[in-house]
Amino acid sequence: MSAPRIAILPSVEQGLREAVEAGGGAVSDPSEADGLIWTKPRDPEGLKEALAQSPARWVQLPFAGIESFFAAGVIDPDLTWTCTKGAYGPSTAEHALALMLAAARRIHVHARARAWKRDGLGAPERTLEGAVVLIVGTGGIGKALARLLRLLGARVAGVNRSGAPLEGAERTGTTDRLPEMVPEADFIVVAAALTEQTRGLFDSELLARMKADAWLVNVARGGLVDTDALVNALTEGSIGGAALDVTDPEPLPEGHPLWDLDNVIITPHVANTWDMALPSLRAMVERNVARFGAGQPLEGLVDPSLGY
Amino acid sequence: MSAPRIAILPSVEQGLREAVEAGGGAVSDPSEADGLIWTKPRDPEGLKEALAQSPARWVQLPFAGIESFFAAGVIDPDLTWTCTKGAYGPSTAEHALALMLAAARRIHVHARARAWKRDGLGAPERTLEGAVVLIVGTGGIGKALARLLRLLGARVAGVNRSGAPLEGAERTGTTDRLPEMVPEADFIVVAAALTEQTRGLFDSELLARMKADAWLVNVARGGLVDTDALVNALTEGSIGGAALDVTDPEPLPEGHPLWDLDNVIITPHVANTWDMALPSLRAMVERNVARFGAGQPLEGLVDPSLGY
Repeated sequence: MSAPRIAILPSVEQGLREAVEAGGGAVSDPSEADGLIWTKPRDPEGLKEALAQSPARWVQLPFAGIESFFAAGVIDPDLTWTCTKGAYGPSTAEHALALMLAAARRIHVHARARAWKRDGLGAPERTLEGAVVLIVGTGGIGKALARLLRLLGARVAGVNRSGAPLEGAERTGTTDRLPEMVPEADFIVVAAALTEQTRGLFDSELLARMKADAWLVNVARGGLVDTDALVNALTEGSIGGAALDVTDPEPLPEGHPLWDLDNVIITPHVANTWDMALPSLRAMVERNVARFGAGQPLEGLVDPSLGY
Repeated sequence: MSAPRIAILPSVEQGLREAVEAGGGAVSDPSEADGLIWTKPRDPEGLKEALAQSPARWVQLPFAGIESFFAAGVIDPDLTWTCTKGAYGPSTAEHALALMLAAARRIHVHARARAWKRDGLGAPERTLEGAVVLIVGTGGIGKALARLLRLLGARVAGVNRSGAPLEGAERTGTTDRLPEMVPEADFIVVAAALTEQTRGLFDSELLARMKADAWLVNVARGGLVDTDALVNALTEGSIGGAALDVTDPEPLPEGHPLWDLDNVIITPHVANTWDMALPSLRAMVERNVARFGAGQPLEGLVDPSLGY
């Protein structure tokens, strides 16, 4: 086939035109495009309008967490959809590690202090060496995180839909094994897609099974955790703490009880900022345009029946 | 030789007696000991008194940073001295990584905030992927840290006394190359021993060569950095920030200017707490008692002429 015609909408982010061309594509108007690169993570309605005026058969989305596009009904199963699942794993895994290390080394406590406070030689700081870490969701984030944790000497367990082994994990279970795996963990990292099946996965029952000093880390989507149940667990001290890059609601409003808890670390959804994401997105666009032009299977294929 | 007689002073920490016996030694009174395990990191005078009443020819110290024992004149070069250099590397490297990730991901800023603050998609958070990290001192800490950083995709450079290559580093230079290596670095991690040669190594001149957004991380000894020069650099904004597990003076007194700077993270010397250290110390004692009994070279030998 000749050079595939690729539209970039709604804005041509830095380097994307060059990425399309490097992949053998021709940047074109949406009205005559074969494929469409959508660059706005939070505008499913805009995409719906663009698609109504375009014959494109393939759409590349710029983020991995695309539940809002499903909710808006824009994911037409007659088209081919790709997102960046997998591509942003390393950056988000790095952020998950930053949150875990901050919790273990009590960076949040020390950052808030204005004095040297130490409880003798046996201070309460912890090491990840030997800690049991349960990774919920074993896609790009989970895989990258498991590698880092193994090098730190942590003991990794994984949970996913199929039970397919997570490399480096001592054990990988299916989601229904969570009730028996949660009580073993010193850290639980939520790195799964938000779907009808996973919404509210960490509810009061599952949280109640956590160790009293275990931390819950969420770098995926706020909706995977029942926020009210989490606030209760934190307030009662039935868990050690929570480190959240994502919240529900998000942004977390001022005055929300989570802001006032000492054993909480909140970062404002910065695990993979646009600046961090762009190089990976550009590389993926180049590869996928080349594959699209050659009629090969695309990377990051969305399965509309699974919702991610 | 028969079982070496080993004294444990001034306190028999958990598991040390068992470690001596597992190494083939007999726990004995200092007055008839061949070797002496000293368990108090901060009491060189106590050790001096103990040695005056003991024929021990070998002394095992419980920490790696033993400059205060040299300063107190207790390191008699006619005896054999071992410290834990190398043994505590992984834990301290983990803390260095925690501080670096906290700086890159601005955990300190977010931990102090009580509201969701984000500067759009292109937020100021950074990733260690692609960052240039200069590790000053390539012993146990530096080696362990280099491995972690490589897995995160950072570009590592090393500096040490001899210029011997640090594994995983793109370049390793001798200490006198610091003036040309410092300007390249996004992060500088101080992980060297404090000696006559390294005291005040990071003075106003070297700090002035740092990138305007680079962070200085110190997990070694406060005395390696000129504190007043550091406060000036931070106040003027000529460097990005400082993350310090050690300070000079230490403990850092209340009201010290470092407590009031937004671009500073201070942890109270907890990179390797006693609880984290004891398993490594026990393992080292067992190995060294066995080597001592067999007349083999000991691990962690101190070179009195070098001061570490």
